[in-house]
Amino acid sequence: MLDVALLGTGGMMPLPDRFLTSLMLRLNGKYMLIDCGEGTQVSIKMLGWGFKNIDVICFTHYHADHVAGLVGILLTIGNSGRRDPITLIGPKGLKKMVDGMRIICPELPFELNMLETENITDNFKIGNFEINSLKVEHRIDCYAYNIIVRRAGKFDIKKAELNNVPKAVWGELQKKDKAEYNGIIYTPDMVLGEERKGIKVTYCTDSRPIKELVEFAKKSDLFVCEGIYAEDEKLEKAIEKKHMIFKEAAQLGKLADVKQMWLTHYSPALTEPELFEQDVKSVFEKVELGYDRINTKITFENN
Amino acid sequence: MLDVALLGTGGMMPLPDRFLTSLMLRLNGKYMLIDCGEGTQVSIKMLGWGFKNIDVICFTHYHADHVAGLVGILLTIGNSGRRDPITLIGPKGLKKMVDGMRIICPELPFELNMLETENITDNFKIGNFEINSLKVEHRIDCYAYNIIVRRAGKFDIKKAELNNVPKAVWGELQKKDKAEYNGIIYTPDMVLGEERKGIKVTYCTDSRPIKELVEFAKKSDLFVCEGIYAEDEKLEKAIEKKHMIFKEAAQLGKLADVKQMWLTHYSPALTEPELFEQDVKSVFEKVELGYDRINTKITFENN
Repeated sequence: MLDVALLGTGGMMPLPDRFLTSLMLRLNGKYMLIDCGEGTQVSIKMLGWGFKNIDVICFTHYHADHVAGLVGILLTIGNSGRRDPITLIGPKGLKKMVDGMRIICPELPFELNMLETENITDNFKIGNFEINSLKVEHRIDCYAYNIIVRRAGKFDIKKAELNNVPKAVWGELQKKDKAEYNGIIYTPDMVLGEERKGIKVTYCTDSRPIKELVEFAKKSDLFVCEGIYAEDEKLEKAIEKKHMIFKEAAQLGKLADVKQMWLTHYSPALTEPELFEQDVKSVFEKVELGYDRINTKITFENN
Repeated sequence: MLDVALLGTGGMMPLPDRFLTSLMLRLNGKYMLIDCGEGTQVSIKMLGWGFKNIDVICFTHYHADHVAGLVGILLTIGNSGRRDPITLIGPKGLKKMVDGMRIICPELPFELNMLETENITDNFKIGNFEINSLKVEHRIDCYAYNIIVRRAGKFDIKKAELNNVPKAVWGELQKKDKAEYNGIIYTPDMVLGEERKGIKVTYCTDSRPIKELVEFAKKSDLFVCEGIYAEDEKLEKAIEKKHMIFKEAAQLGKLADVKQMWLTHYSPALTEPELFEQDVKSVFEKVELGYDRINTKITFENN
């Protein structure tokens, strides 16, 4: 079961009723964030989720509206009592960015592990969050991320018996990577059926709607995607600034056949995105216009 | 006439209803800021004041809760159309701090002039804001500031005639530093009476209540002072962290004989500072418990 909340829905600058775009995920009491612009920590407080168990912060890119809240978040995490390391993941230049920002918070009570996005391997995991990335098309290096929560197959008693797995380790093999009994190592594949469908959440901002995003977001349970402008007439401006308009985002969601979709990263000039709801739903009915702290609980399918 | 607003009243971290302590002043359509923590730009928008004419930003010190909003403010000032330079004033290390933060906003459409506080001379002026500073006692280098708006003396016709100042430059000498007529230079002191009482606003956070602050804040029209804890029992903690409790701040205001005083920079744990209003007024009746966007218009006295 994965809880997901969009902490803000703004692009460029925070507004009185709209924080900057940032995604927060909660799984088994652990949190991860993607992006943290100015004010992100305030939205977390308003949502009522915690700070101490934020294990990972991913950055799509280093424009200030996605990064400037980092120092405040780190200090507040420190004040919440955390002493375990935090992993930061972001495009090339991560250490330089973090070192620059840390001039105003040189001392933190925990370590920062830094990983550049291009160096993370397929199926990279932090706790139970599996994190994958895709390089997208913005004015500077920028990545989309998806978070996958895998779900093991059902326990298969016949398979366990066929493989001569002793009953004593049946329970252990449903929770751990391996189990030992009388000097023999047993693995989960000896007692479990086919891996079942897990949960997939995809997040993309800021980018043009490149075709690789369709495959990357394919069949996501939730696809959070930027839409900086609502109006079709702003397509040219979106192309120039390497963003996308609402309908381009919706088309991506439709082609990727996602179950649920939230738009975000609205231009500050777009004061009432909800006025365009019907228009964008005409492209893809599952699109919702994200708003600050919209959230959902995604559960495994019954199977 | 000087407008003054306290943009936020929080210390350490911004809260849903409390931005971080920052002072904004407006004089003849020009603005200055002292401190700009995370979220300061949102509070400016809520107040409805402008960005384009922010000419100066002063920093008391470089703890993140006084600085982390700088990048966002600079970008928003740029988006508002400003192309004229902005002056930044702060303790030693200003350039290093600004260069670090600017890794996430390398391009701005205006220049930054940087001045270290210890190098600004007495009666230093930016536009009509006269800025003075006092080194205070915090855990790192920290300054209090006062802003003075001077008011020239009344025009003295007898003095003008006595000094043989031609009528043609009487008007000019009431607005400018000098005037020329028939090759002779005339100065305002030749036509004006004694300088009249101007306006003085003093801002101090974060510090212990050192005795030099009494003289520095002397007879201010408004004294904005930190009070991180309300309760007398927290004095020891305030001493340890180099802050002050409400009553210490109030005592400073009383000794400095200020006309009006606002407390600010409350600990996040102090959720209802207003409960201590009567208590602190028993020390100095002119103390008010600041709240976000409390503001006042200070006019010259009638004389």
